[in-house]
Amino acid sequence: MKAGRILLLLLCLNVVTFGVIADLPTCPASDLGSGCGDSDEWEGEFFPGIPKIKYEGPSTKNPLAFKWYNADEEILGKKMKDWMRFSVAFWHTFRGTGGDPFGAPTKNWPWEDGTNSVAMAKRRMRANFEFINKLGVDRWCFHDRDIAPDGETLEESNKNLDEVVALAKDLQGTKIRPLWGTAQLFLHPRYMHGGATSPEVGVYAYAAAQVKKAIEVTHYLGGENYVFWGGREGYQSLLNTDMGRELDHLARFLEAAVAYKKKIGYNGTLLIEPKPQEPTKHQYDWDAATSANFLRKYGLIGEFKLNIECNHATLSGHSCYHELETARLNGLLGNVDANTGDPQTGWDTDQFLTDIAEATLVMHSVVKNGGIAPGGFNFDAKLRRESTDVEDLFIAHIGGMDTLARGLRNVAKLVEDGSLPDLVRKRYKSFDTEVGALIEAGKADFEYLEKKAIEWGEPTVPSAKQELAEMLFQSVL
Amino acid sequence: MKAGRILLLLLCLNVVTFGVIADLPTCPASDLGSGCGDSDEWEGEFFPGIPKIKYEGPSTKNPLAFKWYNADEEILGKKMKDWMRFSVAFWHTFRGTGGDPFGAPTKNWPWEDGTNSVAMAKRRMRANFEFINKLGVDRWCFHDRDIAPDGETLEESNKNLDEVVALAKDLQGTKIRPLWGTAQLFLHPRYMHGGATSPEVGVYAYAAAQVKKAIEVTHYLGGENYVFWGGREGYQSLLNTDMGRELDHLARFLEAAVAYKKKIGYNGTLLIEPKPQEPTKHQYDWDAATSANFLRKYGLIGEFKLNIECNHATLSGHSCYHELETARLNGLLGNVDANTGDPQTGWDTDQFLTDIAEATLVMHSVVKNGGIAPGGFNFDAKLRRESTDVEDLFIAHIGGMDTLARGLRNVAKLVEDGSLPDLVRKRYKSFDTEVGALIEAGKADFEYLEKKAIEWGEPTVPSAKQELAEMLFQSVL
Amino acid sequence: MKAGRILLLLLCLNVVTFGVIADLPTCPASDLGSGCGDSDEWEGEFFPGIPKIKYEGPSTKNPLAFKWYNADEEILGKKMKDWMRFSVAFWHTFRGTGGDPFGAPTKNWPWEDGTNSVAMAKRRMRANFEFINKLGVDRWCFHDRDIAPDGETLEESNKNLDEVVALAKDLQGTKIRPLWGTAQLFLHPRYMHGGATSPEVGVYAYAAAQVKKAIEVTHYLGGENYVFWGGREGYQSLLNTDMGRELDHLARFLEAAVAYKKKIGYNGTLLIEPKPQEPTKHQYDWDAATSANFLRKYGLIGEFKLNIECNHATLSGHSCYHELETARLNGLLGNVDANTGDPQTGWDTDQFLTDIAEATLVMHSVVKNGGIAPGGFNFDAKLRRESTDVEDLFIAHIGGMDTLARGLRNVAKLVEDGSLPDLVRKRYKSFDTEVGALIEAGKADFEYLEKKAIEWGEPTVPSAKQELAEMLFQSVL
Amino acid sequence: MKAGRILLLLLCLNVVTFGVIADLPTCPASDLGSGCGDSDEWEGEFFPGIPKIKYEGPSTKNPLAFKWYNADEEILGKKMKDWMRFSVAFWHTFRGTGGDPFGAPTKNWPWEDGTNSVAMAKRRMRANFEFINKLGVDRWCFHDRDIAPDGETLEESNKNLDEVVALAKDLQGTKIRPLWGTAQLFLHPRYMHGGATSPEVGVYAYAAAQVKKAIEVTHYLGGENYVFWGGREGYQSLLNTDMGRELDHLARFLEAAVAYKKKIGYNGTLLIEPKPQEPTKHQYDWDAATSANFLRKYGLIGEFKLNIECNHATLSGHSCYHELETARLNGLLGNVDANTGDPQTGWDTDQFLTDIAEATLVMHSVVKNGGIAPGGFNFDAKLRRESTDVEDLFIAHIGGMDTLARGLRNVAKLVEDGSLPDLVRKRYKSFDTEVGALIEAGKADFEYLEKKAIEWGEPTVPSAKQELAEMLFQSVL
Repeated sequence: MKAGRILLLLLCLNVVTFGVIADLPTCPASDLGSGCGDSDEWEGEFFPGIPKIKYEGPSTKNPLAFKWYNADEEILGKKMKDWMRFSVAFWHTFRGTGGDPFGAPTKNWPWEDGTNSVAMAKRRMRANFEFINKLGVDRWCFHDRDIAPDGETLEESNKNLDEVVALAKDLQGTKIRPLWGTAQLFLHPRYMHGGATSPEVGVYAYAAAQVKKAIEVTHYLGGENYVFWGGREGYQSLLNTDMGRELDHLARFLEAAVAYKKKIGYNGTLLIEPKPQEPTKHQYDWDAATSANFLRKYGLIGEFKLNIECNHATLSGHSCYHELETARLNGLLGNVDANTGDPQTGWDTDQFLTDIAEATLVMHSVVKNGGIAPGGFNFDAKLRRESTDVEDLFIAHIGGMDTLARGLRNVAKLVEDGSLPDLVRKRYKSFDTEVGALIEAGKADFEYLEKKAIEWGEPTVPSAKQELAEMLFQSVL
Repeated sequence: MKAGRILLLLLCLNVVTFGVIADLPTCPASDLGSGCGDSDEWEGEFFPGIPKIKYEGPSTKNPLAFKWYNADEEILGKKMKDWMRFSVAFWHTFRGTGGDPFGAPTKNWPWEDGTNSVAMAKRRMRANFEFINKLGVDRWCFHDRDIAPDGETLEESNKNLDEVVALAKDLQGTKIRPLWGTAQLFLHPRYMHGGATSPEVGVYAYAAAQVKKAIEVTHYLGGENYVFWGGREGYQSLLNTDMGRELDHLARFLEAAVAYKKKIGYNGTLLIEPKPQEPTKHQYDWDAATSANFLRKYGLIGEFKLNIECNHATLSGHSCYHELETARLNGLLGNVDANTGDPQTGWDTDQFLTDIAEATLVMHSVVKNGGIAPGGFNFDAKLRRESTDVEDLFIAHIGGMDTLARGLRNVAKLVEDGSLPDLVRKRYKSFDTEVGALIEAGKADFEYLEKKAIEWGEPTVPSAKQELAEMLFQSVL
Repeated sequence: MKAGRILLLLLCLNVVTFGVIADLPTCPASDLGSGCGDSDEWEGEFFPGIPKIKYEGPSTKNPLAFKWYNADEEILGKKMKDWMRFSVAFWHTFRGTGGDPFGAPTKNWPWEDGTNSVAMAKRRMRANFEFINKLGVDRWCFHDRDIAPDGETLEESNKNLDEVVALAKDLQGTKIRPLWGTAQLFLHPRYMHGGATSPEVGVYAYAAAQVKKAIEVTHYLGGENYVFWGGREGYQSLLNTDMGRELDHLARFLEAAVAYKKKIGYNGTLLIEPKPQEPTKHQYDWDAATSANFLRKYGLIGEFKLNIECNHATLSGHSCYHELETARLNGLLGNVDANTGDPQTGWDTDQFLTDIAEATLVMHSVVKNGGIAPGGFNFDAKLRRESTDVEDLFIAHIGGMDTLARGLRNVAKLVEDGSLPDLVRKRYKSFDTEVGALIEAGKADFEYLEKKAIEWGEPTVPSAKQELAEMLFQSVL
Repeated sequence: MKAGRILLLLLCLNVVTFGVIADLPTCPASDLGSGCGDSDEWEGEFFPGIPKIKYEGPSTKNPLAFKWYNADEEILGKKMKDWMRFSVAFWHTFRGTGGDPFGAPTKNWPWEDGTNSVAMAKRRMRANFEFINKLGVDRWCFHDRDIAPDGETLEESNKNLDEVVALAKDLQGTKIRPLWGTAQLFLHPRYMHGGATSPEVGVYAYAAAQVKKAIEVTHYLGGENYVFWGGREGYQSLLNTDMGRELDHLARFLEAAVAYKKKIGYNGTLLIEPKPQEPTKHQYDWDAATSANFLRKYGLIGEFKLNIECNHATLSGHSCYHELETARLNGLLGNVDANTGDPQTGWDTDQFLTDIAEATLVMHSVVKNGGIAPGGFNFDAKLRRESTDVEDLFIAHIGGMDTLARGLRNVAKLVEDGSLPDLVRKRYKSFDTEVGALIEAGKADFEYLEKKAIEWGEPTVPSAKQELAEMLFQSVL
């Protein structure tokens, strides 16, 4: 077998799906020559038919306008854009191919030239910023390998990354910055057994080097957060896994990340993104509580917050609201990956959120938290495989933004009306007493409580009024 | 409406299902008079046709004999009975009625007289000890309200309990003791919003008084552990719930339990039994990791261990083996509720474990933990509703004991053969190196690791050999 | 053991939970004597504080008023009440106790006297009609054993039933009638292995006798439909089950029901209510398609329709809309059991529907079907166990009715706007052609189609516009 | 953008995952020239270190030997190989890449040259037959596009297919033949909305042409069955779908397939393979009962059987045994796709079956069916992504074959022992009576049955003995 064929094999094996993302093959300089160098030569707009998206209010029939999101309108004391801090996910929007486990890519964006060259990466980055500007958001999120192609070596990969990042820095201007950056430690076969939890020390080191660079780059771009999603940090089978040793390695890895961040003076928040499973059978950051336990066990609790994704929440058996509240009550609510799953499917569908009630609950957590800055709402959501028009990219984002904006407006109604918060507060009023205060202060021992129980006799227990609470909630939707 | 009728209402509303447990109505002294006082007058054996169960080996066709469990046989350096420490669950075996959400009780045990009197409670306790003795186990588990009826007041309930406990103490003799005791804080309507997490301070106090008594009683009977199962400590809807306040209350409650235990000199282990949901939509002790996070957050981590139930594990989206390993690696593996669920149903079926592979994995965790004493295996498992012969009680327990015993024998083969543990150890051998040691000692920073990554180039990543591992595992079954 | 005690045992074993329903013990005439006979002596209103519920429009803050349901308002060419045909489920509303597998009853309705006497049954029936009248609906649903107590014999049970039914007939007046009746073939222990699918021929005969009577009674009351819910017609384990024989028996049973209905001149629709599981591991009427297959296999397809329940739909892995559409497309959409489940729990929670989007989809199916008369919307929904105020019964029903009414109003907007139906129609326009017509007429064979495929070359495949469809749908909510 | 780049784009977009299958790019004749034509020049064995797999019995430590499968040994009156009729799935074994939704391909089989050329296809086919021969099976299964590359046009694709099929025919010799063939109607973007259910008439025609050819090719190779797996015949959202029209189209399509099969004299069995979902949210062939309903509704019931896959069974909420029994009782049990899923994951993992109890139940259905010829057991199962050694291919298949063989041996014990079948038979003995016979003959009407019910009084209902059944079952494992 000749060298040429091997090269092509390597190139094309690189053509794979990440979520909907396929890394197209690096443009092979020597083989395909002239067809590659000019990838960046794109003239005019990427989205020529799409205007800057404007707020037109609920009655508009224009699918390319906002019905509910009015960036500068003030709600509950803050501008909508400051509550939301929306972000476009580079990978879904610009590297999503529409591939699925049974299907080939379906997206044929006009600006793609079929290569994974640095030149193509730069063209794509320019499309990204045109998209962001037309959509009217200020933030974006990325994996290192989404935005720049893998090289033959780590150094070459870093060089590719630097080149694209320099352009991104330029395109960002003064207003736009990353909500967060991250390293892609799951697509490449070297990470098939994990990155920080790989049984191979060489992979651990490689992952460390990659995260080091990704933190540097995020820092350079002014990224406000840095995310760890451990898609391969888990197991497929406990039969061949030393879970204890792997968890220890993961802790060492995160400690080193914290140390490095501090060393280079990066002040962004480190975020762990829980997901129960998929691609592995079990991921160590299963849900918010599991991640919190890990952070506490290894003394990392003050150094990380959580990035809660709604679809990951439901895959772990929880409502999104539950996961947000769990994060909030553990002091860990750092960011929201704004998407939704299908209630009848057992995998991550990463759909744009369209459920108004769900959006209202999500915003309720965020409002109770006083906002989530420096975190925000990242659209970790993708077009359906069968949505193949360029305008679908806009329609989907507008729908997602409007849904959350509608949720925020509903929360404002909830707060202003006050009936539902009141109902909750009153349920616990028996603890707003002397005995309640003693209990809450940890000063009521069992002997004292037994005495009170005997003194009081059989307690009266009122209705929980769940149906009324549901009625009050629905009335603001 | 006359008083008599109200009384009957109260009595009969007491006739309810707990799991399979129905509290039969307290014998109403004045109304039914003479029919009650003599409930304890039972002559002869409760299980007249059932002999003491013996070990007859795998080839026996006798359903009332052990095929695999040979109590005094030594396996992996311990007698089988010392690995297993089997326990009969009083509630399933003696209070299970066969009722389900759509069906009435089906069990008509000959020794039941249809009342929930103290006399009946004592007769039932005698049946329990005959059962335990015939089955050849040394331990039993109970809730306070299973073994003695609720009184009109807390004092009366305590008095009832004392009377039955005195008999149990007597029947235990020198050999038998509780594996654990616990308080039933879920059946009575007063606990409908929770015990420690009820919004009613009066309920919190009542629950404290009940746990205080249950700890005393467990201590008195020589119980080796005391369990908290928070079946009502959770929420049905977040719309009407202050989750943060409830979790704080739960922590205060457990702190008080720890303090009281120490005050009275009780040395048994306190156990939390995770269960994700059912009866509530969400229970705060969702799974092992969630419970561990709670214990860590509130500084209770050294005071509690976990009681892992296989059916609860699968309801929370994990394998039983995963939950056991998670508990073990957090230093929290305290006890096993030995049962299994149906893989296709979304509620707790509490079946006796019959899956040999599952039993082998369960025992693998236990062996890796060096045993689980002072914990053991409690059969938190019940007859199917449709199994209504007295002998079914024995057949079910024998099946469960044999399955776990077979699991233990398989683990011995696994250990002795060594191939599977070897496969695992070798997967991680690259960490048994100088660099690996640095990493594991927390001394390898990102700069050092990047240097190594560049020096080493692309790492080689061997096969995970999962299919081989599965083959090796199956070969010991 | 004396006879008296045995009697009490039997009486109290009868005190069980069905869903939230507990059959209270039949008032034991001889033992408790005078306390029973006067149960029906209730003076004044059952719901004295509750007025007749009125429509007050979306802005009302009154929880005891309709916001969206305006019975006589015309929507899409019909009065709202004629689209909805709402029905109160006697069992949830009047026999629900709040019991669950881990908890005792919690409801203490003032009109209950703690007995299960015929007198009490009659009093309860009067409460039912006051409730129906105040709520402003015209229909109700019942099981035979909900409305009248079991007797010692079948004849006595039938006599009890006749007595209560006579009263119901009277209370119905000219306006109110049953949406449907049914026989309770799951609560009593005799049905633990099934009714029509019991391995015991005696149980099969008993079930037949009970259904015979229930059909007669439904006919007498003017019930528009008769329902078969096979809660015990399934299996717990295939190991001890002859599924083929059981399915054959079920078919014979339903054939006999059809024959009997015709013989007595009853013209109501027979409905099968699919449910995948719970209480059994597998029920033979798993979902709409499974039920349709059964009906077709046994030649019963023209004789039955389906009663689709939303919570059953989601338990079987489908959306409610899917099940409704499947029933509709099989010509089997007969009735809706209007409730909803919890998206994170694996059992039947039977909650009142509060999801506006869901309600809109449900109503969309119904509108596409041209309505579902003689079927309707039965509230097979229950108060949460913790909702214990009498007014909660009203609040829950009002919420459920308003939610469906809001759904209907949304469907009207959907139809009037036309954008979404248009989007769907246009997707299939390539079949509105000559070739399409040939295909749809079954006249396009593979050779012809291959010729066309070659002639046409690679087909163009447009975007599915799912996100746009979701946006259009949300805009009417 | 230049033409060359467009070509490369098309080529590389072709590099996608199907299950584990990636279609490598067609070798682009003009661009890459000489590197392609010699792909078939492979010398020596493909699996040089692997001997012909032999039966060595349960005690062997050799992972490349059978412990339980002894092809010519007679069990229950047939040779093991005649019960099993094992088949290798070409796609998983030879086109599986290890790619998953978040990860790139991981398999680097030495015989692959990185192209998707016809020459490579032929080389791969030779590897397939060496594998089959070494494994000692006689059957294989394939999709058209697995074994030969897509061409630019349908005609070119057919030509490619013919060339590879000619070689396969040759390699098959007299002993080996396809268990079944099928057409791949899900990978290519043209099928993103379905094949037979696409809203595009051009796609419908294309699919028809492709199935026509695939049936011809299967016929030519002597394939015993032809399979329809409708991975895209379903919907992602009902909002944009006309389900009724799609189902009608599907029926027309299958009718045309039946007609064509008959026209060309092909006698193989047509099989539908149910799968509930994935890739779509809902597939029309959801499970066995749903498929049966479809076949009955459209008058196709006599023309098709079902191919039951265990992992598909569990995804639809059923046990594999349930689906097999449902198929069997509907007269539709045609073939088994022998694999298993992970009990905790909500997607198709297609693992090799290793569960002994499951295998025993699977074989129990097959034995009750008197075997499933002309169907067999196809290993629709794939190596884990992380299993990357060539020998893993053998280990996995040996494990799967041994597990089913062990299952068959257990069934023989079950049958010979007779206790469990006896237990079942006796449960229904009350129907082996005069009244039972009347009922089963459809001659017992409700009036007769009511008379019997009254005559017999309360029926006695014996224990279901489920725990005993489980014990008897376990004793043969």
